[in-house]
Amino acid sequence: MKLIGLVDTTFARFDMGRSVIQELNATGTGFRIMRYTVPGIKDIPVAAKKLIEEQGCDIIVACGMPGPKPVDKISAQIASTGIMQVQILTNKHIIEVFVHEDEAEGLKDLGILCDRRAREHAINAYHLLFDPEYLTRYAGRGLRQGYEDVGSTDDPLKGGIRH
Amino acid sequence: MKLIGLVDTTFARFDMGRSVIQELNATGTGFRIMRYTVPGIKDIPVAAKKLIEEQGCDIIVACGMPGPKPVDKISAQIASTGIMQVQILTNKHIIEVFVHEDEAEGLKDLGILCDRRAREHAINAYHLLFDPEYLTRYAGRGLRQGYEDVGSTDDPLKGGIRH
Amino acid sequence: MKLIGLVDTTFARFDMGRSVIQELNATGTGFRIMRYTVPGIKDIPVAAKKLIEEQGCDIIVACGMPGPKPVDKISAQIASTGIMQVQILTNKHIIEVFVHEDEAEGLKDLGILCDRRAREHAINAYHLLFDPEYLTRYAGRGLRQGYEDVGSTDDPLKGGIRH
Amino acid sequence: MKLIGLVDTTFARFDMGRSVIQELNATGTGFRIMRYTVPGIKDIPVAAKKLIEEQGCDIIVACGMPGPKPVDKISAQIASTGIMQVQILTNKHIIEVFVHEDEAEGLKDLGILCDRRAREHAINAYHLLFDPEYLTRYAGRGLRQGYEDVGSTDDPLKGGIRH
Amino acid sequence: MKLIGLVDTTFARFDMGRSVIQELNATGTGFRIMRYTVPGIKDIPVAAKKLIEEQGCDIIVACGMPGPKPVDKISAQIASTGIMQVQILTNKHIIEVFVHEDEAEGLKDLGILCDRRAREHAINAYHLLFDPEYLTRYAGRGLRQGYEDVGSTDDPLKGGIRH
Repeated sequence: MKLIGLVDTTFARFDMGRSVIQELNATGTGFRIMRYTVPGIKDIPVAAKKLIEEQGCDIIVACGMPGPKPVDKISAQIASTGIMQVQILTNKHIIEVFVHEDEAEGLKDLGILCDRRAREHAINAYHLLFDPEYLTRYAGRGLRQGYEDVGSTDDPLKGGIRH
Repeated sequence: MKLIGLVDTTFARFDMGRSVIQELNATGTGFRIMRYTVPGIKDIPVAAKKLIEEQGCDIIVACGMPGPKPVDKISAQIASTGIMQVQILTNKHIIEVFVHEDEAEGLKDLGILCDRRAREHAINAYHLLFDPEYLTRYAGRGLRQGYEDVGSTDDPLKGGIRH
Repeated sequence: MKLIGLVDTTFARFDMGRSVIQELNATGTGFRIMRYTVPGIKDIPVAAKKLIEEQGCDIIVACGMPGPKPVDKISAQIASTGIMQVQILTNKHIIEVFVHEDEAEGLKDLGILCDRRAREHAINAYHLLFDPEYLTRYAGRGLRQGYEDVGSTDDPLKGGIRH
Repeated sequence: MKLIGLVDTTFARFDMGRSVIQELNATGTGFRIMRYTVPGIKDIPVAAKKLIEEQGCDIIVACGMPGPKPVDKISAQIASTGIMQVQILTNKHIIEVFVHEDEAEGLKDLGILCDRRAREHAINAYHLLFDPEYLTRYAGRGLRQGYEDVGSTDDPLKGGIRH
Repeated sequence: MKLIGLVDTTFARFDMGRSVIQELNATGTGFRIMRYTVPGIKDIPVAAKKLIEEQGCDIIVACGMPGPKPVDKISAQIASTGIMQVQILTNKHIIEVFVHEDEAEGLKDLGILCDRRAREHAINAYHLLFDPEYLTRYAGRGLRQGYEDVGSTDDPLKGGIRH
């Protein structure tokens, strides 16, 4: 039984954690999910490290929504840098599911983007955990999470591929 | 008996530490507060680490007020990066209560913002320490500290919710 | 038998990993290649660390394609910083083969640039692994990977040299 | 007997180390000062770490003067980040006394600013070393080093306070 | 017998390593130089760490030439941050001799600047290694490497001093 950690925030304006849980459960079995909600994105890295080191999680999905102001962009950079450090110190993947609040035009589109990115990254986390060689067949294929895939230089006219 | 560390600065123009202490005492019991005041925000991370490792604090609330100049913004980024590192090295949360001096229009509003953000983050720290699962019920709900909550994509017309 | 780790992404729009493998095999023998594909560039550092520490790789070639948006540029900086940290913690080289999506005018040129940079850095990795003193003969010679070499201040009129 | 480390540079255009030494000696006793001069600000962090770990210093005062060019501002950020890391790794304070070369209008004002900031931070270092609870009485009081204190939101008309 | 590590790159357009070696040999004795050439500046930090930890070097001189594009400036920042980290982890100085390709007007001036900065930093490295107290006599004197010294606020009319 593998343990998947899920870290999310009260700052975000969409419950991406719910999408992650639904998609993981629709994708496969053999894992248990442990959820840890923190106030904001800068609280995510230590929460992820605690889930890995104190709870034994094998991989983390970290959901956050950086705000639109310059200070929020700096916070996102600091949070991502922390997420990077935790991965390096623990040798565990943390799949970062960040949707910037200004990435979509309106609230409805923002919700749709959040849901889709969360689900597609949940699948990535599943494969990294259970079948790390799976993604090699899509190496260099221009995959995107939350948007249409953009394809590779080999098939520019075909548009993106779906996995 | 849990130990809550409080780090603040002489540079800030509002005594956020006082607000944190008042709010913590109004919220619950079972903890003792240890306060450590340093000159500026870049002195906060090592103070927090000393409180955790030398004094045994279980969580830290770190209050600071970055100045309005570009060099101050860089200092804030460095301080936040240090706060991040201390969390990652110690597996303890440090709740960062930073109010930028140019975040409010006048001194009076600045004081109100400082007081409110300090109090709301004090409550966050309390929950993370005594009931880490508490915040999950507000995951993705668009909570803000110091301002009105902005709500989630599910309830945009209802405006923010209060917890 | 040396072990060369190859990390690449599904986000990139060209299969640089394939170019690296072809060029390494055309350059010499005495090594085995271990490939690990991850979603995006921020997933590369921990993948590289796992290849080094869990699989015993002696050197890593890390291929990625940062997107054209400002947020992508930040991601590239965070990824590179992580790659730097992994090298410092493991004392192993990670040759970073990053091609920015907006570095070439069109998709065809982008593919050519990717292929060429990947191959020239594969050769660099080979030399660092098997003959670390090799590159000293080209110290300060203005070599470039993916573009024409620009030469040194000693031979500005001769243009770049090829190795 | 406490040991205060003093790190400064040949790049700076004012001998802030001299001001620090004078002010420390005028403030109290019970310490010895160990001085280490390096070329530039990016050489400061390792010098501070060597003073702490190889010489046993209890606290460091680090004086530097970042130049006015953009590349100098980046150097200042890197130096400050290194100073932060050394503090976190050693659990010792490093009081950063940086005066940017373009912070004052002319050379004379630059010298006055350097001298004053160095002296006021020397006092901060003294208190952090011998009486860490001293600064709490000035928490949130808008103290500044090198300039007039700006005061708190409680006393905006009174202007800054002096300690 | 001390061991001085020299790290340089094939990307640079001037052989600064040669200048460093010549100047060190003209300055004193009692050391041996170990040279390690890597492709670019981001490969320098781990090379320096390997020279220190695997070869026993006592100090490192690291020569590099960041390119003129924004992405090159980011690379320089990442490289410098890595050089900083290696120093902090090893307690050894790494004297960074970086000349930005756009720092001089033409190729000839670029070469002159490279040669001069490399030589003046070689002398700094020599003093830090054999006589660490030497530089204190020049503390706050406005020394520059590669350019004329700018002097201190005490002697603005005298211009720079030479050491």
